[in-house]
Amino acid sequence: MAQREAHVHEPYEIELTGPQSPIRADQVPFQAEFTHTSGRAMTLLGFWDGERRYLVRIAPPLAGTWTWRTSSDAAELDGHSGEFTAEPAEPAESAEFTDSPAHGVVRVNARFHFAHEDGTPFRPVGATVYNWIHQDEPLRTQTMASLSEAGLNKLRFMVFPQAGGYVEHFPELMPFERTDDGWDVGRPKVEFFRRLDSLVADLGNRGIEADVLIFDAYDRGVFGLNELTEEQDAAYLRYLVARLGAYPNVWWSLCNEFDQMTDRPTERWTRAGELLAKIDAHDHLRSIHNWVELYDYNQRWVTHASIQNGYATEALGRASLYRDVYRKPIVLDEIKYEGDTERWGRLSAPELVDRFWITTASGCYASHGESFVTESGSLHIVEGGRLRGESPARLGFLRQVLDGLQIPGLDPIDKWDDPASVVGKAREQYLIYLGRDAPAEWTFRLPQGHDGDRLKVGDAFEVQIIDTWNMTITTAPDEYVLTEVQRNDAYAHNNAPVALPEGEAIALLITRVPSAS
Amino acid sequence: MAQREAHVHEPYEIELTGPQSPIRADQVPFQAEFTHTSGRAMTLLGFWDGERRYLVRIAPPLAGTWTWRTSSDAAELDGHSGEFTAEPAEPAESAEFTDSPAHGVVRVNARFHFAHEDGTPFRPVGATVYNWIHQDEPLRTQTMASLSEAGLNKLRFMVFPQAGGYVEHFPELMPFERTDDGWDVGRPKVEFFRRLDSLVADLGNRGIEADVLIFDAYDRGVFGLNELTEEQDAAYLRYLVARLGAYPNVWWSLCNEFDQMTDRPTERWTRAGELLAKIDAHDHLRSIHNWVELYDYNQRWVTHASIQNGYATEALGRASLYRDVYRKPIVLDEIKYEGDTERWGRLSAPELVDRFWITTASGCYASHGESFVTESGSLHIVEGGRLRGESPARLGFLRQVLDGLQIPGLDPIDKWDDPASVVGKAREQYLIYLGRDAPAEWTFRLPQGHDGDRLKVGDAFEVQIIDTWNMTITTAPDEYVLTEVQRNDAYAHNNAPVALPEGEAIALLITRVPSAS
Repeated sequence: MAQREAHVHEPYEIELTGPQSPIRADQVPFQAEFTHTSGRAMTLLGFWDGERRYLVRIAPPLAGTWTWRTSSDAAELDGHSGEFTAEPAEPAESAEFTDSPAHGVVRVNARFHFAHEDGTPFRPVGATVYNWIHQDEPLRTQTMASLSEAGLNKLRFMVFPQAGGYVEHFPELMPFERTDDGWDVGRPKVEFFRRLDSLVADLGNRGIEADVLIFDAYDRGVFGLNELTEEQDAAYLRYLVARLGAYPNVWWSLCNEFDQMTDRPTERWTRAGELLAKIDAHDHLRSIHNWVELYDYNQRWVTHASIQNGYATEALGRASLYRDVYRKPIVLDEIKYEGDTERWGRLSAPELVDRFWITTASGCYASHGESFVTESGSLHIVEGGRLRGESPARLGFLRQVLDGLQIPGLDPIDKWDDPASVVGKAREQYLIYLGRDAPAEWTFRLPQGHDGDRLKVGDAFEVQIIDTWNMTITTAPDEYVLTEVQRNDAYAHNNAPVALPEGEAIALLITRVPSAS
Repeated sequence: MAQREAHVHEPYEIELTGPQSPIRADQVPFQAEFTHTSGRAMTLLGFWDGERRYLVRIAPPLAGTWTWRTSSDAAELDGHSGEFTAEPAEPAESAEFTDSPAHGVVRVNARFHFAHEDGTPFRPVGATVYNWIHQDEPLRTQTMASLSEAGLNKLRFMVFPQAGGYVEHFPELMPFERTDDGWDVGRPKVEFFRRLDSLVADLGNRGIEADVLIFDAYDRGVFGLNELTEEQDAAYLRYLVARLGAYPNVWWSLCNEFDQMTDRPTERWTRAGELLAKIDAHDHLRSIHNWVELYDYNQRWVTHASIQNGYATEALGRASLYRDVYRKPIVLDEIKYEGDTERWGRLSAPELVDRFWITTASGCYASHGESFVTESGSLHIVEGGRLRGESPARLGFLRQVLDGLQIPGLDPIDKWDDPASVVGKAREQYLIYLGRDAPAEWTFRLPQGHDGDRLKVGDAFEVQIIDTWNMTITTAPDEYVLTEVQRNDAYAHNNAPVALPEGEAIALLITRVPSAS
């Protein structure tokens, strides 16, 4: 039995030897109950890893001593036990990766936002490469390197291979053995899943969250992985969760454009989501992504909304409506792409960057995608590679701004009357996005807060002028001091307006500072 | 036993004599099973109507012979039976009231719209007078007359009396008897509920749907009707449904601004809504209206969303997002008011009319309210009376336009890419709202439809220019014939642009006509 060094928020693996004849992977071969001295307990599914090798993996959420015990119908896997000590989380190897998995699983924070298990806020500025794991090296690594260089911190990719337009490379390695009856989910290709493990770990080491798209709406019979029964889907889901759940950087998404699978009733997705919530003891984020019909993100199993709707990000005042509806974090995971293809993929870089800032100023998050036709005839969102667009660097800059916030996230201040002009946390920090064609000056005004957050005459503020395209942050020379506070608005009449670089794409970050008086 | 003439879609009442000592109204005194010769059956709750008088009411949905039989724990009310013949619905007395209750209960039609049981579309353009039934005559009748004159066809009002700002008249007649322990829902004031019956019937006779606000978030202990227990609420709900359910013009709304009742968990509202759905054999529309927290309108008991959010109606592209979220009709029941009071009640008439057209062009519906301070120090939305604003006549005009549509309702044509520019039904009829400051001309362009609704070169259209403020409809002299149909758009290059009254608030209604060729 392996006894490696264990660390908080890192996968720790226990290996057992199973019976002579392998247990089919559509059965859970064994479970292990892990118990910390504090009493915290987690039940984890074991999985088959080839030949007689069976594993169970945990990312210990707490430092200290953990004991474990297995149970199984197979005598060889039943009743094993042991203990290990989890050392505190290791600091990130490089300060460059603030989103190191050492901070733990990302979860919902402050209702509409995200934070790692250790409390560090996570501000998703992600990308999309559906068919990433199905490419050959060195393309896969180049993809990661390019995302990482741009400063993007989440990647949406599919486990099953994509079929359809712009798919120019068909993989040889598939997730299951094939029989005359089709795919045998009872016999996963261990080589396939080991590669997946290692790619997810690689993303984590680069500070990138792995947003795993579990089922495949683009297969349409090409590979036949869309034709699994609901029981087969469930077996695959258990196997996937058992293998990947201990990687702290995993997010789950049941499907991209789920409603392209028109033969599946919504209830099937709900059952899959509820199963996922039940079996994932690490409690990763869970969602599902739509084509034209929105999923009911009010379902309890859903932790955040993952919405396709570019239109909602074209103007302020739209995406914020989703917040009130779902009362969960809103991630606009497909808002059209920077590129030169069809209507969904021919945004200019300034347009896409503008959509990100609009989304941000709506209290929501967005994902990037690039759709210039590549040398192979494919697209970056399909196969990855080096990013060519002008938006990624600007999105990295946006992420820096978000990582610099001193508040959990940006929320509308005047929620019903004007949710889109000013976001932040009242009397603490505010963001105002003035759009792609800023005026020459901006007169200081803030909406009034509520209860303990009400502005007072004398409150003083620093104003930072963020040029979202040229990637500069300039602090306005004046300090802005409130001279008049009305029922709904507050003014600094003694200050001249803030001078702006007219015509540029400008956001303002306004932070309260100690008053001089 | 009464045997009056019965008509389809009209309340028909059966009276029984109960025991010497009255059955408390927090018990259902008896039920009656009504069966039509077709096999269609409805189970209706009986109710106490004072002394030894017990009633059950049905609005027969089908013409022909109905039989009925009662069941009760009380021997006096058990085992009665009879039969009656329902004559076909009587035509409306006046052609003026196209929404006569003779068309039957209004239900959801074509997913996002409404129609009466007989298929006649219903286009809600409603008003709000919370405390209407609690005023004295002649104010109540004046309210109805003024709404009816303006052409408004729905009225939102509360059963329980309103307390709070602008309430200047406290009612003497309350819904229940009072004991030392508070309100006794077991002893309803029959006089109160008979008046309610008669007011609902009066609305129906004027072609106005009665949107009944069942519980009261504005009481705050003033009357104490907010302090009923959940069991008392349920008893009242059963009584109300038994009394009013046979009036075809009833809509149910559990509460206005439900989330003002901060001591009630959401689950309590859900249980009330589910009970309502279960006991209302007439299956009226059901919703609930929010303050700052949206209800989950995806709940099954909810038939349509009744949303307060004025901001969503300020610009195109917002309210339509709710359609995708809830996949039910969206009624914006509170979008700020025409008046001269606070921030929520000082819209100009052109602003309010603009919001209605924006809502319409978003595939949704809205409700009117007026908040000029009245002579008594109250507001029209509180006490009613004669409407003073300039918007009601324009809303009556909007309703005429909607009633003239040849399609079930207005739906976005290019749903994801541009849901707000053009609504209607592809290749049949379209509405385009150009806003309050129309350009001097409009170049004919339509978005392409899908599947069987795809536009073809040669398709011909009539264009009507609707001046939404001046209330005129002018047909453009030309017929517009498509000369080019692209993947997403269609053009009539041989036509000159449509000349418009520049600067006015203009909508275009575009209807396909038989092609000349």
